[in-house]
Amino acid sequence: MSQFKLHDVRLFCVPNCFFAVVLFSAGALAAAQEQSGSAKAVSKGETNDQPNMEIRKVGFVVHGGAGTIERSEMTPEREREYRAGLEHALTAGYEILKRAGSSLDATEAAVRVLEDDPHFNAGKGSVFTNVGTNEMDAAIMDGKALRAGAVASLKHIKNPVSLARLVMERSGHVMMDGEGAEAFAKENGIQLLTDQKYFFTKQRWEALQKVKSAEKSGGGAGGKKYIITDQDRHGTVGAVALDQNGNLAAATSTGGTTNKRAGRVGDSPVIGSGTYANNATCAVSATGDGEYFIRATVAHEVSALMEYRGMSLKEAAQSVLDKVAKLGGSGGLIAIDRQGNIALPFNTSGMYRGYVDPNGKFVVEIYK
Amino acid sequence: MSQFKLHDVRLFCVPNCFFAVVLFSAGALAAAQEQSGSAKAVSKGETNDQPNMEIRKVGFVVHGGAGTIERSEMTPEREREYRAGLEHALTAGYEILKRAGSSLDATEAAVRVLEDDPHFNAGKGSVFTNVGTNEMDAAIMDGKALRAGAVASLKHIKNPVSLARLVMERSGHVMMDGEGAEAFAKENGIQLLTDQKYFFTKQRWEALQKVKSAEKSGGGAGGKKYIITDQDRHGTVGAVALDQNGNLAAATSTGGTTNKRAGRVGDSPVIGSGTYANNATCAVSATGDGEYFIRATVAHEVSALMEYRGMSLKEAAQSVLDKVAKLGGSGGLIAIDRQGNIALPFNTSGMYRGYVDPNGKFVVEIYK
Repeated sequence: MSQFKLHDVRLFCVPNCFFAVVLFSAGALAAAQEQSGSAKAVSKGETNDQPNMEIRKVGFVVHGGAGTIERSEMTPEREREYRAGLEHALTAGYEILKRAGSSLDATEAAVRVLEDDPHFNAGKGSVFTNVGTNEMDAAIMDGKALRAGAVASLKHIKNPVSLARLVMERSGHVMMDGEGAEAFAKENGIQLLTDQKYFFTKQRWEALQKVKSAEKSGGGAGGKKYIITDQDRHGTVGAVALDQNGNLAAATSTGGTTNKRAGRVGDSPVIGSGTYANNATCAVSATGDGEYFIRATVAHEVSALMEYRGMSLKEAAQSVLDKVAKLGGSGGLIAIDRQGNIALPFNTSGMYRGYVDPNGKFVVEIYK
Repeated sequence: MSQFKLHDVRLFCVPNCFFAVVLFSAGALAAAQEQSGSAKAVSKGETNDQPNMEIRKVGFVVHGGAGTIERSEMTPEREREYRAGLEHALTAGYEILKRAGSSLDATEAAVRVLEDDPHFNAGKGSVFTNVGTNEMDAAIMDGKALRAGAVASLKHIKNPVSLARLVMERSGHVMMDGEGAEAFAKENGIQLLTDQKYFFTKQRWEALQKVKSAEKSGGGAGGKKYIITDQDRHGTVGAVALDQNGNLAAATSTGGTTNKRAGRVGDSPVIGSGTYANNATCAVSATGDGEYFIRATVAHEVSALMEYRGMSLKEAAQSVLDKVAKLGGSGGLIAIDRQGNIALPFNTSGMYRGYVDPNGKFVVEIYK
């Protein structure tokens, strides 16, 4: 899906001559800065039409869910597809950041790409509830003004993250759910799907049957045994970004967990749990056993440990994930701070993830 | 509604002879302890059938919403009704705590009383959405195990807080909304109302018309002017408790804001925003402009400031409310910590509130 190679994003930029030089120097500066530990990179190059404008470091991270992802169960072709999806999302967001776009736009764009990709559990590839429906949650948060938008239990919206943004910007509310949220979408020109056919994927439907069969067979007494991996059960997509203006944003979208009860809302749309952004600290998007992530108020806890305990982003992110594990939950999160430091901890065997390194290179990883 | 007087709860206890002596000594000890600053009061009185069991201090606080509550607009009769409602709720919860019941049971019981009272914006007295429906949110959290249950956008449930508890205990999930949540309620023996007549109150219906008229008249150009007080707009009920086992709990329930869009979810069911409990720190239930309380992750922020900044409950609660005000929001919160300290800050002209003081006396207040 992606048209350019890993570790080679700058080639992609060449056609955009105006930006190419700026970006090249920004990339080089960012690299130098990473070594010096400085928070800002200042460019006064002539390619900049605002001579004294600071060209600050940008940063971008995406995830496509954490869980039991075993190399042995992954075909090379399938792995390529997942990697391509993550690269595609990285590109969508990073292109915006490079052009001095906002972190909000970048996270929304990347999450939309992942929502449209059937490999990931959000939008098109959403899992099924216990009654065979698809119900989606999403959220977005702007770290500059602490504005947020969240949606839950959507059934007829192709891109829940964009509706979350619309809720933030035009509803006067922060969180909306179900038919009310969809009516608001319609009022604002978002087309509703007439039914849920768009969300049908064979893979997710089979995962539901597998989980239901395992449920029926109980402990396995006489029943057929099934191995239910986390991959069958859940997944989430998300993005966090730092833009040239130093603004942080986070966005998350999910179909929830396979066989969830209809009406179940996970952590993704719970501001402070699955999604949070605050320019004073960090932007976080989480994925995993949503119930545990809500109970541990994961995303805001990372922020609080940085702000009030003085932890680094990495320490805070790992510390919170350890708390989730202590409660009994597994998963992961992606986070970025104002200095462009990133963290991508997870306590499962894998997490679909990608980021743009300080040299502008794309890094996509799946396993530990 | 309440059958006994303010500042005289111990009279009420006399018929329960077994508990009367225990409570009297617990009350006295609690008073002594308050002065000495000690966290626990130990009784080895012979009235206790477990001679070495510690009789710990309990604490209980309720609220019935914060907003513009002017003395000049309140009749003595109406004020008596509000006070009676709060006393009734205090009794329901405190009676449970005195008998060594759990903080979870106490908060649920008190919130149910307020949900059943048409004076408060929750359950029976819920406000109307912009399409004339009633949509309720609620949550409950157990500080001991960080378990939580939350429900949103309910239309046919008399006591949303009890469904929140059921979600916590039996659904395998933390948060459920809409029809899915109601189907889960039905499965578990909770009777659904067949329509919304139960929630109709003249006062709330008139408030909706008032807000709608004000909306139509825009800035007042040619239109009739209306004074829309916070009281017309919102409200929430909640309770926080410390039980004899040292466990904290919080519960919140609301009809949301008058003229809210259908599908709007406020802060009440957002764990970490309107509701949070953690034995390590405190239990919090908030009320006010829900959107701002979500953006400020109010309830978890109070906890974080205590845990990571070492603030007292009062300092933390006030500090967070100041942050809400800085974002542009108004409201209040009630909070209690493991030592039984309580805080009830609000930045509006009034908040319906009540607590049981260290001597076992009921204190009910409305204005600043």
